[in-house]
Amino acid sequence: MSTIVIQDCTVVQQPDEFRLNVLAHHDIWVRGQIIESVVPTGHRDASHADQAIPAAGLIAMPGLINTHAHVAMVLFRGLAEDVAFRPWFNDYIWPLEHNLTERDVHMGSLIGMAESLMGGVTTVNDHYFNMDEAAHAVAALGIRAMLGWAVFGSGGATMLKRAEQFALEWRGAASGRILTAMAPHAPYTCSDDFLRASAKIAQRHALPIHIHAAETLEQTQASLQRTGLTPIQVLERTGVLSAQTILAHACGVMDGDLERIAASGAGVSQCTKTYLKLGMEVAPVVAMRQAGIPVGVGTDGAASNNTLDVWESMRLMALIQKQQAHSGEAMPIAQVIYAATRGGAHALGLGDCLGALEPGFLADLILLDLGALHHQPLHDIGASLVYNTQPAEVHTVIVDGRVVVQNRRLLTLDIGPVLAEASAARQRLSRRGQERIQTYSD
Amino acid sequence: MSTIVIQDCTVVQQPDEFRLNVLAHHDIWVRGQIIESVVPTGHRDASHADQAIPAAGLIAMPGLINTHAHVAMVLFRGLAEDVAFRPWFNDYIWPLEHNLTERDVHMGSLIGMAESLMGGVTTVNDHYFNMDEAAHAVAALGIRAMLGWAVFGSGGATMLKRAEQFALEWRGAASGRILTAMAPHAPYTCSDDFLRASAKIAQRHALPIHIHAAETLEQTQASLQRTGLTPIQVLERTGVLSAQTILAHACGVMDGDLERIAASGAGVSQCTKTYLKLGMEVAPVVAMRQAGIPVGVGTDGAASNNTLDVWESMRLMALIQKQQAHSGEAMPIAQVIYAATRGGAHALGLGDCLGALEPGFLADLILLDLGALHHQPLHDIGASLVYNTQPAEVHTVIVDGRVVVQNRRLLTLDIGPVLAEASAARQRLSRRGQERIQTYSD
Repeated sequence: MSTIVIQDCTVVQQPDEFRLNVLAHHDIWVRGQIIESVVPTGHRDASHADQAIPAAGLIAMPGLINTHAHVAMVLFRGLAEDVAFRPWFNDYIWPLEHNLTERDVHMGSLIGMAESLMGGVTTVNDHYFNMDEAAHAVAALGIRAMLGWAVFGSGGATMLKRAEQFALEWRGAASGRILTAMAPHAPYTCSDDFLRASAKIAQRHALPIHIHAAETLEQTQASLQRTGLTPIQVLERTGVLSAQTILAHACGVMDGDLERIAASGAGVSQCTKTYLKLGMEVAPVVAMRQAGIPVGVGTDGAASNNTLDVWESMRLMALIQKQQAHSGEAMPIAQVIYAATRGGAHALGLGDCLGALEPGFLADLILLDLGALHHQPLHDIGASLVYNTQPAEVHTVIVDGRVVVQNRRLLTLDIGPVLAEASAARQRLSRRGQERIQTYSD
Repeated sequence: MSTIVIQDCTVVQQPDEFRLNVLAHHDIWVRGQIIESVVPTGHRDASHADQAIPAAGLIAMPGLINTHAHVAMVLFRGLAEDVAFRPWFNDYIWPLEHNLTERDVHMGSLIGMAESLMGGVTTVNDHYFNMDEAAHAVAALGIRAMLGWAVFGSGGATMLKRAEQFALEWRGAASGRILTAMAPHAPYTCSDDFLRASAKIAQRHALPIHIHAAETLEQTQASLQRTGLTPIQVLERTGVLSAQTILAHACGVMDGDLERIAASGAGVSQCTKTYLKLGMEVAPVVAMRQAGIPVGVGTDGAASNNTLDVWESMRLMALIQKQQAHSGEAMPIAQVIYAATRGGAHALGLGDCLGALEPGFLADLILLDLGALHHQPLHDIGASLVYNTQPAEVHTVIVDGRVVVQNRRLLTLDIGPVLAEASAARQRLSRRGQERIQTYSD
């Protein structure tokens, strides 16, 4: 197995959620797919490494984990602006997606995953359609991903079967970089029977479930009126809620829901920019963490977020949790960085092997150049990571022990032709007809 | 007078606050300090220009206006993290500022104004101490600024006189790029008599007033208990509130305050990141605009914002106003861009000559390269400007008809030695003693 040594960088480690250690002048040794050691510079002889990466002046930290995205939706960014929650679905996204082709998902996945890598995201939890294309993109680009083929109840057993086949076919592919999940869309688009069937498939194959739930209080109230149960209770009753489940959003949670989620072991993905942009509530992240619920950061799709920038997503989560607490003390810096790395890994059920720059963990890490003016003078690296850092400051990205971005250049693919094809398709992509893939009601 | 032609760019213009026109393949002609014309590419013979700037593929828009900053506080970024509102003042900033030297303001102003220019900010409204140093930085760097020497009531007549002298000495300096203002700190740190004296000086010399007001609801409630008046009423009664006044924050406004501000003609600066970070309220910007109050975007100081990034500030303002309205329809894209440009100019009383890419306006403009992955495919330039753009995408900056940033390089100063000096001073800068320049109470 080949070894890489990253030399003389400043290493950011977190012994726990509320602590951040910054180690100047350290070397990181990577062996195969695994971080082997983190040692003071020079403690091991670099000439023994197969590859040496000089990193003086750079900050090393775990790669960011995007716990909820619809990657290929980068194709739609800017097409649903300044609209309310319901028309965002019914008048924009679901009509747009009616025209979506396999080739589009191919393009969108490549662009979105390239954007992710260039911005320091090493794992993305992707929930979308035509996921074979997403899997091919993951394989080509060298990112790590959990992929779930999104299905509505209206797709019935046929689509559920398709999603199951996808999950089994691709699980463990690309040297293990591809993980798969079942991805029933949401309680408001899937019947209880459909959710039960999804949960059974997941259980049978030990697959995670990635699902939207309790996106807004209105959804929760509508669910209560319809069934007497909150969406979280519906997931509990149908067997969807388990330690293998990742809940996107959970903004509209009621008394008792946090306890239910915590008891199940499920994780939550928080995509703050979407909630603000569409005028939604946010989840009570601080309370969730106090209840022991794993919480990760997500971008959601670029049709609401506009980018796949996890730096911005974590910053917004921190800022809004402080706002909600009416206190600048809420959600301190260490907790924010943890959520975007190991917390996200925990939310995906991978906390024991992913999201930390520690020996034995998967070698998914990034090197940052914080030399730009807006970090100077650099009093506090943690603060700069949360409140100042831009994706463009990601200098080097290593996933699964392989350098995929170096000196701000993507090594695994020439994305130019894909961008040209997507740009040429803009008119077609932005066409909205009368038909839609689904209709939204709370 | 020399002429510049910016060739074949895409021009963003706003006929009014709610409209955004995007003109592909246009040339911008600048004559001296003024924009002379905006014409389809080739309509005027470029060989007649003294300087031609090829700009194919770049977006041209007015330079951003930062309507409230404490520029030199970049020296303190990262030093007051995860703290509540009151200790932020009393235990961090005001003790830190007790050690501030003239030389520090020199360094901080250069770094902060360089950061501003590199990020596309062409005008900054700066409220701080030792402002001669700020003025020298403005002169050296080529930015445009309104400068006010911050004074507390505790400074008495001596400091007020100093601030007046500064304002008169520097007004119109640097070929008119320097504007000056009186800058009494806030109603909660200045007595009514001190405010009255400040207002009289401002009136006598036709100087603007730049003041913090109604930062939080607690401040307003404390003011009501103390005097029966809101902070805005205090400013009205003391003669501070006028068409020449710019109010920083105004988050804690009560019934009647908006009408008072609107009637006075005063402008408001909205610095959303600070409000979130310190757990404060935000101002009702949508209602303010409906009442006809000019509203601009501000960063506040980097001790709360951490950067001087006006892109982020405008994005946050839009997102939070949507949140407050519980609707994605609030604060549409055109209105956001307007606030960061011409709206800011109006708030500073300069709306007739600044903040628009129109003939006759001051030639303060920027060229953006939106080629990065996170803009692709580029369906909607307006949306990308608000929701996707990073400061690093500012390619060229022209202030007062002079190119000060070209191809992402600051032409007016080698900032390297200043950064080195600030970095070497980090320990001293971060030292907090028992003494402070002021004590906060609501």
